[in-house]
This record gives sequence, structure tokens and C-alpha cells, in this order.
Amino acid sequence: MTHIRIITPSVVEGLRSLDDIAGLGGPGLTFSHVALERGPSSIEGEYDHVIAAPDVVRRAVEAEADGVDAIVIDCMGDPGLQAARERVSIPVVGPGEASMHLAAMLAHRFAIVTILEAVRPMLGNLARVYGVADKLAAIRVVDMPVLELTERRAEVIERLTENAVRCVEDNHAGVIVLGCTGFFGCADAIAAALAERGLIVPVIDPIPAAACVAEALVKARLTHSRHSYRSPREKRVVGY
Amino acid sequence: MTHIRIITPSVVEGLRSLDDIAGLGGPGLTFSHVALERGPSSIEGEYDHVIAAPDVVRRAVEAEADGVDAIVIDCMGDPGLQAARERVSIPVVGPGEASMHLAAMLAHRFAIVTILEAVRPMLGNLARVYGVADKLAAIRVVDMPVLELTERRAEVIERLTENAVRCVEDNHAGVIVLGCTGFFGCADAIAAALAERGLIVPVIDPIPAAACVAEALVKARLTHSRHSYRSPREKRVVGY
Amino acid sequence: MTHIRIITPSVVEGLRSLDDIAGLGGPGLTFSHVALERGPSSIEGEYDHVIAAPDVVRRAVEAEADGVDAIVIDCMGDPGLQAARERVSIPVVGPGEASMHLAAMLAHRFAIVTILEAVRPMLGNLARVYGVADKLAAIRVVDMPVLELTERRAEVIERLTENAVRCVEDNHAGVIVLGCTGFFGCADAIAAALAERGLIVPVIDPIPAAACVAEALVKARLTHSRHSYRSPREKRVVGY
Amino acid sequence: MTHIRIITPSVVEGLRSLDDIAGLGGPGLTFSHVALERGPSSIEGEYDHVIAAPDVVRRAVEAEADGVDAIVIDCMGDPGLQAARERVSIPVVGPGEASMHLAAMLAHRFAIVTILEAVRPMLGNLARVYGVADKLAAIRVVDMPVLELTERRAEVIERLTENAVRCVEDNHAGVIVLGCTGFFGCADAIAAALAERGLIVPVIDPIPAAACVAEALVKARLTHSRHSYRSPREKRVVGY
Amino acid sequence: MTHIRIITPSVVEGLRSLDDIAGLGGPGLTFSHVALERGPSSIEGEYDHVIAAPDVVRRAVEAEADGVDAIVIDCMGDPGLQAARERVSIPVVGPGEASMHLAAMLAHRFAIVTILEAVRPMLGNLARVYGVADKLAAIRVVDMPVLELTERRAEVIERLTENAVRCVEDNHAGVIVLGCTGFFGCADAIAAALAERGLIVPVIDPIPAAACVAEALVKARLTHSRHSYRSPREKRVVGY
Amino acid sequence: MTHIRIITPSVVEGLRSLDDIAGLGGPGLTFSHVALERGPSSIEGEYDHVIAAPDVVRRAVEAEADGVDAIVIDCMGDPGLQAARERVSIPVVGPGEASMHLAAMLAHRFAIVTILEAVRPMLGNLARVYGVADKLAAIRVVDMPVLELTERRAEVIERLTENAVRCVEDNHAGVIVLGCTGFFGCADAIAAALAERGLIVPVIDPIPAAACVAEALVKARLTHSRHSYRSPREKRVVGY
Repeated sequence: MTHIRIITPSVVEGLRSLDDIAGLGGPGLTFSHVALERGPSSIEGEYDHVIAAPDVVRRAVEAEADGVDAIVIDCMGDPGLQAARERVSIPVVGPGEASMHLAAMLAHRFAIVTILEAVRPMLGNLARVYGVADKLAAIRVVDMPVLELTERRAEVIERLTENAVRCVEDNHAGVIVLGCTGFFGCADAIAAALAERGLIVPVIDPIPAAACVAEALVKARLTHSRHSYRSPREKRVVGY
Repeated sequence: MTHIRIITPSVVEGLRSLDDIAGLGGPGLTFSHVALERGPSSIEGEYDHVIAAPDVVRRAVEAEADGVDAIVIDCMGDPGLQAARERVSIPVVGPGEASMHLAAMLAHRFAIVTILEAVRPMLGNLARVYGVADKLAAIRVVDMPVLELTERRAEVIERLTENAVRCVEDNHAGVIVLGCTGFFGCADAIAAALAERGLIVPVIDPIPAAACVAEALVKARLTHSRHSYRSPREKRVVGY
Repeated sequence: MTHIRIITPSVVEGLRSLDDIAGLGGPGLTFSHVALERGPSSIEGEYDHVIAAPDVVRRAVEAEADGVDAIVIDCMGDPGLQAARERVSIPVVGPGEASMHLAAMLAHRFAIVTILEAVRPMLGNLARVYGVADKLAAIRVVDMPVLELTERRAEVIERLTENAVRCVEDNHAGVIVLGCTGFFGCADAIAAALAERGLIVPVIDPIPAAACVAEALVKARLTHSRHSYRSPREKRVVGY
Repeated sequence: MTHIRIITPSVVEGLRSLDDIAGLGGPGLTFSHVALERGPSSIEGEYDHVIAAPDVVRRAVEAEADGVDAIVIDCMGDPGLQAARERVSIPVVGPGEASMHLAAMLAHRFAIVTILEAVRPMLGNLARVYGVADKLAAIRVVDMPVLELTERRAEVIERLTENAVRCVEDNHAGVIVLGCTGFFGCADAIAAALAERGLIVPVIDPIPAAACVAEALVKARLTHSRHSYRSPREKRVVGY
Repeated sequence: MTHIRIITPSVVEGLRSLDDIAGLGGPGLTFSHVALERGPSSIEGEYDHVIAAPDVVRRAVEAEADGVDAIVIDCMGDPGLQAARERVSIPVVGPGEASMHLAAMLAHRFAIVTILEAVRPMLGNLARVYGVADKLAAIRVVDMPVLELTERRAEVIERLTENAVRCVEDNHAGVIVLGCTGFFGCADAIAAALAERGLIVPVIDPIPAAACVAEALVKARLTHSRHSYRSPREKRVVGY
Repeated sequence: MTHIRIITPSVVEGLRSLDDIAGLGGPGLTFSHVALERGPSSIEGEYDHVIAAPDVVRRAVEAEADGVDAIVIDCMGDPGLQAARERVSIPVVGPGEASMHLAAMLAHRFAIVTILEAVRPMLGNLARVYGVADKLAAIRVVDMPVLELTERRAEVIERLTENAVRCVEDNHAGVIVLGCTGFFGCADAIAAALAERGLIVPVIDPIPAAACVAEALVKARLTHSRHSYRSPREKRVVGY
């Protein structure tokens, strides 16, 4: 039995609910979910990242104390991922990192379709840090903010599809990574739309992908390296 | 329920048995196993790779026809991996690819400890193709052939440990990947030996790692891109 | 006097004949030619590669026993290249490797125009392994299978030219590599068509290029490193 | 007249004072200095980085409102650098980024000598993000925490020198970057010690280097790209 | 007080005058200027580079003897930069190197707009040598020779703007580097034209940028590494 | 019949004579040789490179006028290579470029053993420009100036061998490139000394290697791209 804690790095209630996540579970896999008390409504750049990360780490420490088996951060920007790993020993999985590495395994090159120009540099930098920049064929954007993704669902899928087609045909990507966890649930529709055009490419939904990687790590009894992610030294801290 | 077929790319019986593999399973995960009818006794270079690959692909086609959910090739050199993906639609996972990408997720850099100098170029080339060369800190060798690994177990673990220590201390690797599936079952002993020296680094056993990635792909309903791995065109083939 | 054995990795008779090759010779250079007994009709992907490679290696061993000076594999995918080098000491040259390195010497960037989307990943991976990915500006495809190249010659040249123009003008390539040995004999026509448009760029025909590199290695008394390409260890092999 | 605000990302008073900084000024250059109200005592890893960054950004916004010309963050890890750039239009300079790029201009390769193994991954990742990883020959550590650097000055200089010598002789670095702003003031002593051994290599003190880059940007009327670093969208934020 | 000598690598009088440069100075910064006695009229390729470099070095040695504080070579191709550093100990700054590194600090990626196709390979190679190729999004050309830039000013600005827009919109560059010192004085007009289109990106004028970097090095008491740039050994030289 | 002109970029008579070169010829291959009228005695850094290059180009133009088939520049630093290509249409081959690409074809990684620390940066930069840096395992130096290589032959071979052994054993190079054309004639002795230690690695003598590549280009009717290496525009030049 594996229990995964999903941490949504947002102060908005209802952006992600246990209902959304329940479908990911199955025999031997359960989920719990928390949002932030302090932080932004959504992550659309480096500043949002910075003000989300401290509470993500606090939630990660709490999750380990609660006895969960692994943690998934619910954002493609992976806010707080590396810091959380310094504070806990259970696996902490970022959808950005997990979906880029999965994508790299499924084709010779992958592409990311994300929300806004504002996150292009952040995703590009993550690909460099994660060591997969060589496999990243393109980043394209639908130009829609996170908080409008739910109400404008049809438009989201249409624009994701258009961009995905260009990623495959113009940039020779063999896999599409949805570049925002707010696109949760859109992958099948886009894969189907691509298939109608004769393009048989996997579309990675980052939250399920991250959850599956987290479960795989638990099953393989693997976690991040404490040699690379060292526990912070004892010293005075103010406000955290 | 996920069923994974392990294909050992060797004609030697008993090198890998269902007993070895049984321990990997659990609720919802079962395994079957086949070896090759034609090919080498072990993979220790590019020639062995070439004469193993055709039968690996044949076994992969057979596995898909048998209705298994995913395939794991039982060799760090991933012989036949890319070709098998052109012939089947279920996930085909190579321990080389899977363990390098997992390693890249668990630390800032990883190292591989493998059997012989002869496979150093092959592993280095795979890291380039898989897009993770930037994260590969070192390849070190224990200088022992595959077919002696079982009978010389204590010596294997001792040499793996010595090399792993150097990978961490001299090459600043944060994760060790065991660079041969013949090292199956050694990971815990090496991790423990490292921990005794104060080095808390994950040690990846490639077969369990690949099996967990295969199961994760099945759960996430993902497989390789048929756009990148296209079915061969109909044409005359002799001898296969 | 240098004698080169051309190994065509196909079971189709007449795809390549000594007549085609005779023109490459000259004072001090002679050729012989063999095809495969077992394998595919043409190489258009990783699976074709896998089923061609064993017989390519067998033919390479035979060539060395016959006393030839060097071997050229007649396919841009270089099937069996690395394995053959483990089995023989005379130079084994792949048109893919040789023409990419020659191209890298003749301009700041080069491009490849090849047959089908299906081989794009394979050529991209070879460029990574050969260490010249940094100089590869683009891969473009004419979308025609190997076995139609001879009968549709005019169309082949027209499409190669169109793609070559785009490689130079859009991707800033300074050299064009013909990405299939089935394009043998087309280079001059394409170079002339480019020159008519004011684009003075070399067009590399991979078979003559590989033959010239093979002869150069023989003259320089160089061959591949047996330290990198080690003879396989003695062990049981079935079926090869 | 250029006025630079130094933001020390620590809650410890006296770690950096205006006295330290006064010497950097000159005709036309003045400094002011602030520390954090909330955050860690020192930055020795990713978690420290995460809890320092929000207050660094707040201090940067305050600095711009105060009318300063440029901002320097007083830490090699550049905490909050990218986020601050999204919030202000005046130049924000990180010593990590500035000193790595200066170093890249002064020799064919550079090395960093830093405090602890714990920051090695962070500095390596920054080099990737800043695009200078290709010029980074080595990272070496003196194994001393930030808060002991002042009282153990002689030992600090001795260990920095030993490591610097190895960077030059073993890793072929042509420039040494001091990898912590806590090494402020040590550069001349190390350069002199290297020169005594016949090694004429620049030693970059990151705080003066960053200040000079900040002044250069002001003089050249350049600042970071608002196209790359976009102002955060209006939305609800809690706690910041 | 910092005095910078500008060396224009051209034999044409009046291409650059002290009037052009005066505006760069300020309190504490003065300039002097020399052209070449032997060399080309302008640098538009590798041959021009080769015949300019010897006299650039001679002028650099002369400048150091004159007691100037730093040298700026007035050409994006940085002719003689590395050789001059072997002969003098004061900082020698190339606008190519300085502006590429500044650009790399101001955005996640930058682009260069230059004069002619003929210099594309040279600039691409410089980016590789300087270690910033990973941040270079594109090189675009206005297709105008150096010696026509002054008289066709309006056209120059129009074409620079068009190309800059494409660099930002199509290649996702966040900074524009003007790729020829003959574009001196155009940066503000282009930045303004970009801003009108809503693109807030810095435009780097390489001569002021190089001058500011040179002054920064002087202030930080840094110069190039004599370990990397060694004084030539005593030996017979003819004609120089 | 192919005639190659060797241009030695030195003003010293007798450093290279037709006697040295005669042995490279054979049926269908003849050589002529020139040195420089203006330039350095030897190339041991960037300044030597700069003062050799103009006369190398002049000699290249003269060679083409003389009707030779190809040109080889007799120095691993390839002075004037790119500029000469702008001025002539016959192949111009640099031993640095040719031997690095040949080496890249003969093993998975190669190393260079050269004369002095002073040339390390230059060779490293050439590897980046030529696109083979990824295959370059190490550069090691014997610490002997060019003009002493002839009289200290035994010592040269001894030191080359020691360094070559370390390149193979410590840096995992599969091929050794002799990093100075002054090492002409040493390759066989070093290869034999390596073989005695059980290390079967090719040793590339750069002058014969470059000559063989030049002949191969002539036979393949290939030359450098005039699109990449454009003829200089007509304009005033002083002193050349």
C-alpha cells in the first residue's frame, strides 16, 4: 500500500480536489491532498515560485511526519522540490522533472506546451538543470493564465492541440508534455486529436506521470540522494 | 494487474530464473521470463549486442502476442530496445535507459559501476543517445566478466563498493547505478557499505528499477512514441 | 594498391553492383562487393538495422580473411559498424560516420537530406554518438522509400534539391550530406542545381566519401582502436 | 553618481557592514546595505535559498522604491535573483552569475572554490542555467561553514589557496572564483600565494566583481530583459 | 581615473573618431583612439580578421607602453584579442566577448543581428569559444557591408529592427546584441521600435558595452589570466 | 596524380624539408614545400598564430596559382586555415582539424599530447570550433618547446609515451593525437611502446593524417564550402 501526498502550491481552494486525484489511485495506491496557507494563487513565473516554495517545504516536512510514502508537488515548475529534498527522506517528485525524464524515455525528442510566455525561461532552465535539454525540441505556449484554464476548457484543448501539432510537425517532437498541471485531464483528448491527424504520439499529463514515478520509487525502495541533498545545518532561522 | 515479460538476452539457461524475479512482484504485479534461442551467452560489447538483438525483438513480438503489459530487456546495454519498439506497441523498457533517467532524477550527477573496460564505450554512447550524458559523472569498472559474477559474489560486492566510493568521493556522483543486470541483488549491500562510510547515496539495481518504470508506464497508460519508433514497411526479409 | 570490400546490408540483388562502384576506383584502388544472405531488403529504421547487422559482421570477418585492406558498409545507418570493429583489425568505415565528419571539416555546419521520417531519430542518435551533433544544422526528408529511389530518379533529384535549398537558406548549413547510400550518383546534379541558385555548397555522396576515407586510413596506416573496440571474449554463442 | 544597494540574504546582523562595503566605492559610486528580517543565518543549500528568497525580493522592491540605481544580492547562490528581476526594472546582479561570466571572459576555463559539499550541486546547477558550464573546470570545497569564516580567517586563506592550486594544476583552470561572499577580502592573499608558486591567475572576489558589473550596467544604461523576466500578473497572494 | 584606448582594426580614417567615443566617457573615464597602419578597411570575414590582427596586437603593446588602463578592440569579431592578451598585462576587451556575456546575464537567451552572411560562421565560432553558445538563440543578418552603414543609416535601423523583432518573436531571444561595432549609436532607436511593438528587450551596443566592461575590470583590479594567456617565448620573428 | 603543397608556418629554414615529406608520397601523390618569409620561428601560442597567418594565406593563394591540388598547413594550430579557405577554392587542410576528426572516427574518445601548457587553451578552443569537444578526453603536455624537439628526440618519445599512457589509462582515450607537427615521425615508436604495455591504440601523426585527408578530398572531388567561407569583398587593404 502506497500513500502519496499531493501538495498544490497555491492558496486557492478548489483548484485541485481529492476528487480530481481519486481517479489516479487503484489497488495499493491512495492519495491525500493539501494546498498552501501562504503563497500565490498560481505559479506563472519565478516570483510565484519563490513565494510558494517555503510553504511547499513546510507541507513536505508535515507530510513526512504524517507517515506518507511519497510527495508530489502539483506544479510543472517544481517549486520547492530541491529544498524539500534537503528536509525529508521520503521521495519528493516534481511533475516537471518526472515528466521530462519520462518523455525522454519514450521518444528521441519531446516538446512542452505550456500556459504563458512568462514561464518559458523557467521551463528552459529546469530542462538544463535536469540534464535533458538535449532532448527538448521546443516549448510552445497557449497564452492562457492558470486560473482561466478550467472555465475555458474547450478552448484550452483546441489550443493545446494546435500547438502540439506544430511541435510534432515543425519541431520533430515525438512526445508532448503538457506544461502545466492545470491541464490535468486534457491529455487523452489531445492524443486523440493528434491521432486523427495521423500523429501517434504520447501526451504526458504531468500529475498522473509524477504520481506513477513516485509510486515506482517507493516500490523500488529508492529516494533522492542525501549526499546531494544534505540536511540543513543547525542555525538560527527567523520567520520559518 | 500488470504482467511484465523479462527477456534475458542470453542463451544460457539459469542465468536468470523466475525465482530471481519473483521477489520483484507484489499485489498487482506478476512476471514471466524467457531467454534467447539464438545469441550470445552474455553481453560484453557491441558484437554481443548485435547477435542478441534480433532474438530480443522476436521475443518482444511474441510477448505482445502473449498479451503481456510491458517488456523489460534484462541487460544494461539495452540490446534491441529501439528495434523492439518499432515492432510492438506495449512499453519496452531497457534497464540502461530507465536506470540512467531514474538516477538523473535522484541526484545532481550519477555514476555507473560496470563489469569490463569493453563496455565503457557502449555505456557512454547510450548516455549520449538517452540525453543524460551531462549528468553522468563517471563510469568505473570492476573488471570481471558476466559469467563469473554469481560464483564470485563476495568479490563482486567488494569491488563494486570500492568503485562506488571513488565515484562519490572523486567524481562527486550522488547516485550509483549498477552497470550490469548480473549485479542483481547487490544494491543493498553496497548502499549499506557506503552508508558505513557516511555516504548516503542510492544504489540503483537496474532490473528492479526497470520493472518499476515499466509498471509506472502501464499505470500511466503511456508507451513509446509510434511517431519516433515507426513500424517497419512491408518488404522482403530473409532469415528473420 | 588498396582493395576495399563494399558490404551492402541488403538481401536484394542488383541494388548495388560492381558497375556502380567501378567508377570510384583509380590507379591503386580496386573494389569488390557483397550483399547479405540474411537480412532486410533495405535499411529504413532500427529494426532493419538489427536484422542486417549480424550478417554485416559475418561479411566483415570474411572480408578480412579474404585479405582486403578496408571495408565500407553501404548504408548511412552504419549497421554493424561498431560490432564489426570488435571482430576485425582492418579499417571498417561507415558512410554515416565518414560523411558527417568530412562535412564537419568543410563548413561550420552541415545538414542531412534523407529518405523517410522513420530514419530521422536514428541519424540524430548517430550524430550524438559520433560527437558531431553540435555541427548538425538540420535533418530533412524527401519522403521516399529506398526501393523506389532508382526508378523515380528525376523526382528524387528534384526533392533532394528542394530540401537542400531549405537546409542552406533556412538552417544555414554550409554542406549537404546525402542521407542514404541509395542516393549514389545524385550529388553532382544537386550541387549544380544549388549553384544555379547561387549557393556554392559541397554535396557529399556518402559512398564515394566513405571509400576515400577508407583509402586515406589505409594510406595513413591507421585503423580503429582495439582498446575501444575489444575482441569479444571466448564464450558460447548459438546461431551465429 | 551610481548608488548600489547590497542585500545580504541573512538575518544575522554584522555579517556584512557598511564598513566592509565602503572600500568598494569611489568617485561616483556609493553603497547602502540591508539584511533580511525573515530568513536563514546563512545560505548553505537549497532550503536556505528558499527561505531567503522571499525577503530578498521584498528588499529589492523596497530598494527600487528608494531610488537606488542597482541591486547586488550578497550571496554566491544568487537567492531571489530571477524573481527580483520580475518585480523591479533596475539591474539586479547576483555575484554567482556576475563572477562566473567575468571569469569566463578572463581565461579559457575557470574554477570555483566554495565552502561546503552541500553547495556543490547548487553551484553546478547555476552554471548550467547561466550557460557557462562548458567553461567551469572544477568546483572544490574548503569544508567550512559560513558562520565560522570570519573567526578562522588564516585557516580559510590556507585552505582556499591549497584548493586553488589544485584547480589550476590539476583542472587547468585559468581563473579562480571565490565561491562564497563570506570570503570577501581574501582574494588578494590567495592571488599572491598562487603567484609565489608561479601561477599568475586572477582571483575573483564575488562582491566587488558584482558591484563592478552592476555599475557597468548602470553606465551602459542596460538592465535585465523585461521580456524574459515578466511582471507577475495581478492575483491573490497570501502572506507576502 | 580610467583611460581606455580604443583600437579600430581598420585602415580607414574617420570610420571611428574621438567624437563618437567622447560621449561614452564621464567622470573618471577618458578615451583615446587609434586605427591601423596595415590591415583591411573593414572586418567582414576570417581573412580580414587575419590581416587586421597583427597590427591590433602592435597597437595593444603600444597602448600598454603609453600607460593606458585598458584596451577595447573596436570590432565584434574581436580580431587579435587572444594574441594581444599574450603580449600585455592590462585588460584587453573584445566587444564580441563582452557583449555576449553581458547579454547572457540579462536574459535566458540572446540573439545577434549582424551585417552579412559572411560573418555568421565567425560569430557562431566565437560563441562556442566564449562558452555561451547554449544561450545564443539566433544570428540574423541585415545584408549590408560595413562601409555603407553610415550613409544608409535609416535603412540600417529599419532592417535591424525587423530582424530584432524576428529574433524575439520567432527565436525567443530576450536580448538583442548588435553584431557589428559599425552599428554604434543605433541601439536606442531599435529598443524604442521594439518597445512600440510591446517587446521590452535590452539592445546591446557593443562598443559602449565593451567600454563599461573594461572600466569594470579596471575598478575590480582584474585582468585576463597570464596562466591562460602566456607571454610568447623569446625566438626569432621576421617582419613583425 | 595529386600534388599537395605543404606550407610550414615558420621562417626557420630546415625545420621541415622535402626529404621529410617525400616518404609520405606514393604512386599518384607528390608534394612541394614552402616556409614563410614573414612570421615566427614556431607556433606556440595565439600571438605566433596571428603573425604566421597572413603569410600562410599569401602562400595558399600562391599555391592555387601554381596549380597544386590541395594545401596542408604544417601546424596543429591550423594558423590561417579559415582565412585561406576564403581566398582559394582548392582544399586547405589543417592537421589539427583533420587529425581530431580522424581520431573521433577511430575510437569513442581521443586525447592530444602536445608541447607546452601555452597551447592548451588554443587546442581546446579549436576542438570547440571543430565540433569535437565532446570526444576530447584530455590534453596533456610534454613541456618542451618546438625548436628543441629535433635534438632531444629520445626524450621527446619518452615523454610522449608517458603522457599517452596516462591519457589511455586515466582519461579513457582510445586514440592518441600527437599535438604538434614537430612530433613528425614519432607515432610508430609511441604506438609500439603503448602496445608493449598492452594498450592497442592508434597514434595519429598529424602531417601524414592531414595529407591523407587532403588526398581523399581531392579524390572525392570535395572542397570546403564557399557558402561558409566567402571570398572577401573588394575593398582597400594596406600592407598585404
